[in-house]
Amino acid sequence: MNYPSGIRKEKEKDLFLQKLNYKNRGMTLESDINISNEYYREIEKAFIYKKPTPIKITKVDYPSRDKAVIKEAFFTIPSTTDYNGLYKGKYIDFEAKETKSKSSFALNNIHPHQIKHIENIHYHEGIAFLIVRFTTLNETYLLPAKDFLSFLQKEERKSIPLEFFKTNAYQIKDGYNPRLDYLKIVDQIIGGI
Amino acid sequence: MNYPSGIRKEKEKDLFLQKLNYKNRGMTLESDINISNEYYREIEKAFIYKKPTPIKITKVDYPSRDKAVIKEAFFTIPSTTDYNGLYKGKYIDFEAKETKSKSSFALNNIHPHQIKHIENIHYHEGIAFLIVRFTTLNETYLLPAKDFLSFLQKEERKSIPLEFFKTNAYQIKDGYNPRLDYLKIVDQIIGGI
Repeated sequence: MNYPSGIRKEKEKDLFLQKLNYKNRGMTLESDINISNEYYREIEKAFIYKKPTPIKITKVDYPSRDKAVIKEAFFTIPSTTDYNGLYKGKYIDFEAKETKSKSSFALNNIHPHQIKHIENIHYHEGIAFLIVRFTTLNETYLLPAKDFLSFLQKEERKSIPLEFFKTNAYQIKDGYNPRLDYLKIVDQIIGGI
Repeated sequence: MNYPSGIRKEKEKDLFLQKLNYKNRGMTLESDINISNEYYREIEKAFIYKKPTPIKITKVDYPSRDKAVIKEAFFTIPSTTDYNGLYKGKYIDFEAKETKSKSSFALNNIHPHQIKHIENIHYHEGIAFLIVRFTTLNETYLLPAKDFLSFLQKEERKSIPLEFFKTNAYQIKDGYNPRLDYLKIVDQIIGGI
């Protein structure tokens, strides 16, 4: 998950091209979500975007007046989640993570200030959640903030067992368009149409 | 406004330090908004963040396993606005711009897809607006999306005259904490408390 996003973006682009030619095997969760968000925007259902990767820029060159080239920069720890936006007049906010584990999702995947952020959003009437994909099992879950936070409160464990997802989260099935229809689950959470 | 954000961040940090020692003269609009957002978060009034500057990374070095250094990257055109977040259960979205002009705000400061984004948010029950500061006059205005979009529809002009701001926008007065209490105006827009 600490993959530098530049490389990932390129990978994403390649995968996007692959998608046109092959079956949708091997797509990353991020890529699935981005494609789904594009689709939601096209049909004007929701306006949800991935935030740019936060970096700290330490050196910039100006080969010409209006062209700046970053010559040195570092990835920094994000203070919020990766995705946010607007759906049915509501503020949507979530983090998406993949794990190769077949049995649990390690909590060190989520930074403490991201947890604080999810808590803030949840307690101030925003819709916050995690999307977690167990890549080996090819199972993707949407875990509402309420259940995520209650797990953290009750448990001392350093990971959330798959069993907890099976019981408390909503499985998101793969589809064609959108590829990952997570808003269907958000509808259930907000008691929508 | 095309200032590379790395440099700007450093400037911001310096300005933040200055703030502790001197009067708040010469603060940038971005810095004022960031400080105000921090204050809003501290008192749990709103959770609004500036998005990271979007860049395209083209070269990354790995001097060690968990340390990546970006060796080449470029600033890219943002597809959305700079700030968004949650306030009173509502989705907030805005762009902030400074102009040195004493008479008008040039529309080429806002990219076409940012205008489209503001339109999308406005028509889907989000609270969207511009914050524009006329630095020479030291006047800062909040222009609601509704009025901004109606200007674009009615007028062929390439800039919004100051007079339009005086008539249709809300002036935001400088304060101490928060430095720029723009949520007071958002309250008026949403008919809040």
